[in-house]
Amino acid sequence: MKTTQEILQDARAAKPRAAALSTKEKNTLLLAMADALVKNTEAILAANAADLDAARGEIAPVMLDRLALNEARVAAMADGLRAVAALGDPVGEVLGETVRPNGLRIQKVRVPMGVVAIIYESRPNVTADAAALCLKSGNVCVLRGGREAIRSNTAIVAALRDGLSACDAPETLINLVEDTSRASASELMTARGLVDLLIPRGGKGLIRACVENAKVPCIETGTGICHIYVDAAADPAMALAIVDNAKTSRPSVCNAAEVCLVHQSIAGAFLPALARRLDEKHVELRLDPRAAAIIPGTPAGPEDFDTEFLDYILAVKVVDSVEDAMRHIAAHSTGHSEAIVTEDEAAAAAFCRDVDSAAVYVNASTRFTDGGEFGLGCEMGISTQKLGARGPMGLAELTSYQYIIRGSGQVR
Amino acid sequence: MKTTQEILQDARAAKPRAAALSTKEKNTLLLAMADALVKNTEAILAANAADLDAARGEIAPVMLDRLALNEARVAAMADGLRAVAALGDPVGEVLGETVRPNGLRIQKVRVPMGVVAIIYESRPNVTADAAALCLKSGNVCVLRGGREAIRSNTAIVAALRDGLSACDAPETLINLVEDTSRASASELMTARGLVDLLIPRGGKGLIRACVENAKVPCIETGTGICHIYVDAAADPAMALAIVDNAKTSRPSVCNAAEVCLVHQSIAGAFLPALARRLDEKHVELRLDPRAAAIIPGTPAGPEDFDTEFLDYILAVKVVDSVEDAMRHIAAHSTGHSEAIVTEDEAAAAAFCRDVDSAAVYVNASTRFTDGGEFGLGCEMGISTQKLGARGPMGLAELTSYQYIIRGSGQVR
Repeated sequence: MKTTQEILQDARAAKPRAAALSTKEKNTLLLAMADALVKNTEAILAANAADLDAARGEIAPVMLDRLALNEARVAAMADGLRAVAALGDPVGEVLGETVRPNGLRIQKVRVPMGVVAIIYESRPNVTADAAALCLKSGNVCVLRGGREAIRSNTAIVAALRDGLSACDAPETLINLVEDTSRASASELMTARGLVDLLIPRGGKGLIRACVENAKVPCIETGTGICHIYVDAAADPAMALAIVDNAKTSRPSVCNAAEVCLVHQSIAGAFLPALARRLDEKHVELRLDPRAAAIIPGTPAGPEDFDTEFLDYILAVKVVDSVEDAMRHIAAHSTGHSEAIVTEDEAAAAAFCRDVDSAAVYVNASTRFTDGGEFGLGCEMGISTQKLGARGPMGLAELTSYQYIIRGSGQVR
Repeated sequence: MKTTQEILQDARAAKPRAAALSTKEKNTLLLAMADALVKNTEAILAANAADLDAARGEIAPVMLDRLALNEARVAAMADGLRAVAALGDPVGEVLGETVRPNGLRIQKVRVPMGVVAIIYESRPNVTADAAALCLKSGNVCVLRGGREAIRSNTAIVAALRDGLSACDAPETLINLVEDTSRASASELMTARGLVDLLIPRGGKGLIRACVENAKVPCIETGTGICHIYVDAAADPAMALAIVDNAKTSRPSVCNAAEVCLVHQSIAGAFLPALARRLDEKHVELRLDPRAAAIIPGTPAGPEDFDTEFLDYILAVKVVDSVEDAMRHIAAHSTGHSEAIVTEDEAAAAAFCRDVDSAAVYVNASTRFTDGGEFGLGCEMGISTQKLGARGPMGLAELTSYQYIIRGSGQVR
């Protein structure tokens, strides 16, 4: 087994090769990788079965389901690779060009980041998705998945590398850290000069560990305490449908709503309707005192407004105004996605102007914050920070830029 | 004296106000700040004289010169503010817009970063420049200058705030940390949720401290170990002029060259000419063994190829090929600016493709890496990292973006 340092050195050495691949070469590799995944289905499923055997009783059933692969899921991974092949290539795009009075021609050109390290948790399909997005954006990936998926991830990367080898491309374009200890994660976080971008994908604990310990450039992803504010001027039926959808269509994802703020002037009419609607879906309501005076539910503790439940739980609070709602959001949001439901254009405009989150919605569900829904194609995650990429991270968000300046002997 | 935490809270509270300022309002403020600087020249020069008195004997003469202000320098600072007023406003620019098949209208809009903290060293003009760039880009600045300039910086910020007050704008749009201890720098580096972007401007020690300790998003700036590679196919006269200019026109700045790499096939002819030319400018050459076999000079220690001299010193090495030169650059560069001098288009193309620095030059001096020279206007510094801004940081490089999504009740 290679050490993490050896893997990082391999990745660094592969950077120029990855950056120089033409669009056609990258697409050929992605299609070959897709074919290799399908061809190796049996080996991948056997490895996955071993992972599942080892994990049973160790992790929650919902996590077991995320870990589990079958023939259809492997085929879906392969289709994901083919979809990335069909996307445009961001590398080499000229973002700006100017000829200066002294004759210097300055081009601003999109370039790969270099080595992108991804630390993620149990879902093995992330392995194929991340490898594909990195390859298409000219990056070399260093994948460090979770302990419970290590056999599956090893088999998937072996298949992807089969695809690379079939096209005579170096295997080190795609790298897996087989050591799943905390130490290997720390090594990636501190590999100055070797890791150009670190993307942690996972829960609050992982993100916090990266923020606390990372000495390499890092993009925080995926923690979403998303708010829906139901304004005094909301269409009540629309508000009900949006809150219901944002909470219950897929509670385990980061763009699901965790908090509903309701304007006091409509709380008396809206909250009973909301309680009825969400009771049908078995959603537990955690209520601030003013909401609790109107509908039954669990009294909210203060931590309930700072928790990403990822479950059938919704915190509910009555607010005095759109400003009051925005103050609450500023204090409690993770900067992912927030929505206002209103027919009042002034309230909508204030909300869009002052809410400082990656995605701000007027009259739509927060569940749309997603690379595919935004038309960016497959994504690496949702950035909740403002430096570098923000919101859904597609191919362009995995790149940097560089100035290329051509002269004829100019000096200053 | 306010604590750093109190200042950060003030800054955070001022964010919505800064972000909502119109272009016209910002320009009015900048012009009022410029006038206030000029009006307060006497107070600023008195404070500066006190700084100089305290610093004499404590810091090197070159640093004293950087610290010193006079009437002309204050007027130049005011002109700098007026120049920023004349630049375009990046905030609100629509970077992309799409209407999805489901009718959602998604706009990608440029927004301020929020609170930008800048840690810098002795030059007091940075105080006015940084305040102006942050204000124009809709950000609230928290300025933390060096100990030896504290009286000057305090007087400058008092003048800038006079300008704000004259227009009834809150003083907390511009904030100065008066505590110049290491503790205040550490507080800025770790102020999660309060500082949206940290920009260290200064020497290697400061940058390293930020990289090691920062838990807020940070852009490294200004460390430049810049290389000039003189190719086999170089025009020797052009190469001499470029190396001379890049080394000696202003050795103390980050875009000055520190290393010259020379192709072995022309080293015998080129190096004696280079030695003669630079001897006239009193440049000390630090030579690798192959260069030392051709011209006289100091034998280079290995650290000489990893040192930002910022002085009349040039490290010189003979290389075998453009690939050899690029390997050396990949191993030793800080990612700032590198140049190739060549008439060979293939060598130039390889250099542009494979050198991973913010600015890559063909047949021009590295000294052009500068916001003004690139046509970006005044700049906050030169980023040497790939996440977020890269190269010269003008107004646009102090912004982020946000997705604004408008619907009519869409759910997923």
